[in-house]
Amino acid sequence: MSSSHSRTSRGASTIIFLPSGRRGKFPQQTTILEAARQLGEPIESICGGHVACGKCQVRIEAGKFPKLGVESGPEHVSPPTDEERAWLPVQSLSSTAPLRLACNARLLGDAVVFVPEHARIHQQTIRKDATLRPVAVMPAVRQVYVELSPPSLDDRRGDWERLQDGLRAQWGLDNLNIAYPALRTLSQTMRQGKWKVTVVLWRESRVIEVRPGYQEGIYGLAVDIGSTTVAAHLSDLQTGELLATRAVMNPQVTYGEDLMSRISYAIDNDDGLKKLHRAILGAFNRLAASVAAEAGVKSADIHEAVVVGNTTMISLFLNINPENLGMVPFIMANRDEMDLAASELKLRLHPAANVHILPAVAGHVGADNVAVLLAEEPYRQDDVMLIVDVGTNAEIALWNGKRLYSASSPTGPAFEGAQISQGMRAAPGAIERVRIDRETKAVRYKIIGEERWSDAWTPEQPPALFPTGICGSGVIEAVAEMYLAGVILPDGRFNPELTHPRLRWRGKKGEFVLAAMDETTTGHAIAVTQDDVRAIQLAKAALYAGGKLLMREAGVEKVDRIVLAGAFGSYIDPFHAMVLGLIPDAPLDKVIAVGNAAGDGARIALLNTERRDEAQWVARSSHYVETAANSAFQEAFVSAIHIPHQVDEFPHIARWLPEPVRSAARRRNRSERRSRRSARQRN
Amino acid sequence: MSSSHSRTSRGASTIIFLPSGRRGKFPQQTTILEAARQLGEPIESICGGHVACGKCQVRIEAGKFPKLGVESGPEHVSPPTDEERAWLPVQSLSSTAPLRLACNARLLGDAVVFVPEHARIHQQTIRKDATLRPVAVMPAVRQVYVELSPPSLDDRRGDWERLQDGLRAQWGLDNLNIAYPALRTLSQTMRQGKWKVTVVLWRESRVIEVRPGYQEGIYGLAVDIGSTTVAAHLSDLQTGELLATRAVMNPQVTYGEDLMSRISYAIDNDDGLKKLHRAILGAFNRLAASVAAEAGVKSADIHEAVVVGNTTMISLFLNINPENLGMVPFIMANRDEMDLAASELKLRLHPAANVHILPAVAGHVGADNVAVLLAEEPYRQDDVMLIVDVGTNAEIALWNGKRLYSASSPTGPAFEGAQISQGMRAAPGAIERVRIDRETKAVRYKIIGEERWSDAWTPEQPPALFPTGICGSGVIEAVAEMYLAGVILPDGRFNPELTHPRLRWRGKKGEFVLAAMDETTTGHAIAVTQDDVRAIQLAKAALYAGGKLLMREAGVEKVDRIVLAGAFGSYIDPFHAMVLGLIPDAPLDKVIAVGNAAGDGARIALLNTERRDEAQWVARSSHYVETAANSAFQEAFVSAIHIPHQVDEFPHIARWLPEPVRSAARRRNRSERRSRRSARQRN
Repeated sequence: MSSSHSRTSRGASTIIFLPSGRRGKFPQQTTILEAARQLGEPIESICGGHVACGKCQVRIEAGKFPKLGVESGPEHVSPPTDEERAWLPVQSLSSTAPLRLACNARLLGDAVVFVPEHARIHQQTIRKDATLRPVAVMPAVRQVYVELSPPSLDDRRGDWERLQDGLRAQWGLDNLNIAYPALRTLSQTMRQGKWKVTVVLWRESRVIEVRPGYQEGIYGLAVDIGSTTVAAHLSDLQTGELLATRAVMNPQVTYGEDLMSRISYAIDNDDGLKKLHRAILGAFNRLAASVAAEAGVKSADIHEAVVVGNTTMISLFLNINPENLGMVPFIMANRDEMDLAASELKLRLHPAANVHILPAVAGHVGADNVAVLLAEEPYRQDDVMLIVDVGTNAEIALWNGKRLYSASSPTGPAFEGAQISQGMRAAPGAIERVRIDRETKAVRYKIIGEERWSDAWTPEQPPALFPTGICGSGVIEAVAEMYLAGVILPDGRFNPELTHPRLRWRGKKGEFVLAAMDETTTGHAIAVTQDDVRAIQLAKAALYAGGKLLMREAGVEKVDRIVLAGAFGSYIDPFHAMVLGLIPDAPLDKVIAVGNAAGDGARIALLNTERRDEAQWVARSSHYVETAANSAFQEAFVSAIHIPHQVDEFPHIARWLPEPVRSAARRRNRSERRSRRSARQRN
Repeated sequence: MSSSHSRTSRGASTIIFLPSGRRGKFPQQTTILEAARQLGEPIESICGGHVACGKCQVRIEAGKFPKLGVESGPEHVSPPTDEERAWLPVQSLSSTAPLRLACNARLLGDAVVFVPEHARIHQQTIRKDATLRPVAVMPAVRQVYVELSPPSLDDRRGDWERLQDGLRAQWGLDNLNIAYPALRTLSQTMRQGKWKVTVVLWRESRVIEVRPGYQEGIYGLAVDIGSTTVAAHLSDLQTGELLATRAVMNPQVTYGEDLMSRISYAIDNDDGLKKLHRAILGAFNRLAASVAAEAGVKSADIHEAVVVGNTTMISLFLNINPENLGMVPFIMANRDEMDLAASELKLRLHPAANVHILPAVAGHVGADNVAVLLAEEPYRQDDVMLIVDVGTNAEIALWNGKRLYSASSPTGPAFEGAQISQGMRAAPGAIERVRIDRETKAVRYKIIGEERWSDAWTPEQPPALFPTGICGSGVIEAVAEMYLAGVILPDGRFNPELTHPRLRWRGKKGEFVLAAMDETTTGHAIAVTQDDVRAIQLAKAALYAGGKLLMREAGVEKVDRIVLAGAFGSYIDPFHAMVLGLIPDAPLDKVIAVGNAAGDGARIALLNTERRDEAQWVARSSHYVETAANSAFQEAFVSAIHIPHQVDEFPHIARWLPEPVRSAARRRNRSERRSRRSARQRN
């Protein structure tokens, strides 16, 4: 069947991998796996060619391949051994294009080898939306399989020395050390496995577990410690697959809603730090146990964790007093990436697990923001890109095509529904979206926990629950809609010329009713007050001023793209954000809300160690701009308190702005043209 | 006063250090400390030239030094600053040859500088006897002092980054990491010290403690875990000085007197390993606390420990099941040196303390034996040297001028007084020395706890206590003396031709009474029985055969020196050891007993990290010779069961051997000479 020519020419065989097309010539008897390695063709192999894992299944194609210039067939490789047959599907063995283990099939002639998806070294997709990004699975933890010779009176190497020699010879691993828990049970494990063991390695340098025989299973945890929510994502570190995600409320909220109140609690109480630390430790351990249970594994199977969070959260997680984060110049104990022993932190993971903490940029730009940058990769774009991470503080990053700039802006907690008269966290019953008819001022809204908008509710089909308050995104939409409907003026005052049943006055301060008292569970109407509008104005002005400050530092006039990240990021409507003047002008289709990108960044760092180096580079190369005592920031802040009415500044939303604003803009433009004209005439 | 010539010639000044004589030329304004460093003159400095430790006091000599070709005087260096004066004795300042801080005195002209002993970098003497060995103090832990600039809005480095930058700039230290307990309190410490801190470093790579301001004090513990006794030695790691030594009985004796019974206990009981481990852990922690208290410091001030012990003791100390040490081929979990976190082992030392475990050679030649070799340094001798470390097993090492050989010999516990009819441990009341009159067979002995020999006891001045048994050294001396007095014959039988009241017969087996029943506290006579003699014969034959086996392997006929080490080593009389045939023949004045050399070795490794590398080299390069299934060993063993009577084999003790032995030797020599003569005549 095969051409004797192709099988013997110059004692070398041509091998071509599909679909990559990689090709090369190798001496006969070379294994397909060896050829793949030399050509850089990524074929999965855990056992390292011991016919013990069955991962390296490839298909030997049969027939003439004129375009490739070779002829291939199953007989062009050595026949499968009994050991190999045990790994292969029975029906495949008799196929004309059989599956074979690349580690056991040796070239006898030319071969065209197809590498199926499952045999390729993994890539993992971190997010299943517009910004879907594949990440190569190159975690800090991997497992290798070794077969050793037993000791004898002539070979009295210690067990660890024997294992090291095996790892050096079979995997080229050198300068290894071994974790104490692994050393403790090493002798029994090696004998139990009859001198065949699976070794779990951390960063190619540390043996953290040894298992008898061939045994798969390594897991990693990505944790985002937010001030309000702690989220954990469990991944299979072999495939990169996301196995389970859970989130719980940060139990520290008992000791203070926002960062500053927790810092104060840590400073003002003797055991304040201890309580805050124990609270987050408990949440971490419960989350780890619960995602592990969901995935059918144990907490002790979690071999590594990557943790992100703002600087205060990381400080409390590490049991470090955060007091210096509460005062100028906001200095951290350590702003670089850290690797710490989980056992030292009393985390209930694998006994030799490592905890990697992403680096921070500066006092208020923490590991969570670095994680957002890692997920969004602005520094890989040609565009000018602004990333806004909104939480209690807003962290802002700008990429101008050459350099990263970052700042922290003191927005306060208004965007999270705090300091709003009827504000609440984004929980069931919270009004999260609002629409106001431009003419009639009729209001419709959507609450968390009910699919339908309020105008679709009927007595026959009442909502699942009634509103109890308004959350951050609800307030933002409400204020923007009130502005668009002419209920409030650009300066934030309620329109004194408007008369409407929903607009009520308490002295000089107006308020606008979203839900009448008979629509709510509380028996009180839910309204947006003048103070609420002021709080939102201050918060949005701080955010906007931060963005403007960075644009000025970076020497850019406009931004091409905006990413809205953070706890409420995915609920925010880019249109309303821009109408309110939360963010600078940009094409609306280039403003995207990505939700909790910090968690994505943590997962990326968990799956790929090169991205950890990238995070460290991001943190260190980012140019931090201080807002606190910055006059340019103050100036930008003051002039951003008004809601956008300078049409020139927001061309992308100009046509939606209220008519009075637009006609005022037309008047201003005309007058400016006139003055330019008269100036020219004077010259 | 000074010659302007010497102060200005070519803008450079000559500096000469005494007593070393090191000299060099340096630009004016160079500090004496800097000049010393460049010339390799070892001057102590902890604070690194910050005028903060006062360690670098040197004397500026005054006058003309014609032989040195310079003129020197206090005015040839910059005058002391107020800061410096605070460190110097007042009367010295007005002296013509004042003390100065080398870090603060700058060269203005030529200077002759005397470096007093206390300012030199330390050496420490490990043992105060014949083999006194100085060890350079180069411990794994050292402290350095740094002064940092405070943070500001323009300098927002994290505290750890700031400290690293300071350590790099002021001490050339790079690639440092920081222990978690140190990181936890770093921010407070740096502020408390007003940005001046003392840093405790482990192996120039890890910051294990940071103290506010300038604060001295680093301590290390050397621990020798013997099967019977655990000894701990606390040293000042700055000076190398031994501060306290304590020893306690190994509490594991409750679970078995010897190694094999403890290994069995660990195997046969579910919580056997746990109990044995906890026992030694408790002893370790109690010892650490007690030596620390004795030295006026805390356990938490102990920054490092070096631990030695036989392979089973180390295994139990590390909570590793020792079962494989109880069966052929006696494989260890790890035979190399180890560095482990004290906290991981639950040792109550400094929270970031390291525990260094010396390497072992093979299954029964452990870290304790390597420590003995480290203390005795046979490999630095030109002589052929045999080192015998006697415990429950005897470990034997031989240096033939080129290579180290080692073996373990199964002597059994007879040398420790076990398996002896009236045997006991070396405790008060034990007969430890014995003399028997060659003619009258009168016995005198010495017991532990009483200074005087028994023949000096009188009813008026009775001993402090009466004998209760006999310990290892007592049995050895007794058997040797019985042989020399003709009570037993070379083959170990009691002399059937001797009639003496002390010689009693129980059937065919004799026994010799050392202490009559009215002399003992037990009311029983203390006698050496035929079975006791046999036990000692077997033990000494095993030891001797081990030595002979190594000599054969190493190709040497005789040894030049013998070192007797081990728990009872210092009590053993080399003469009796040789009479009994415990050790091969050697000049008697070249046989020394060094006591517990393992503890010395542990202290050496504690004080000097280069010696740790040496220990690893010793362990790995030592050629291990198996005795277990070795026919040459068996042969040597059988022919060594007799007590020395081949006068040729023991020329150095021949003249003391009993007359019948010597006359038999003369007869044998005559007959050999005859047969050689007749052989020559035949040829």
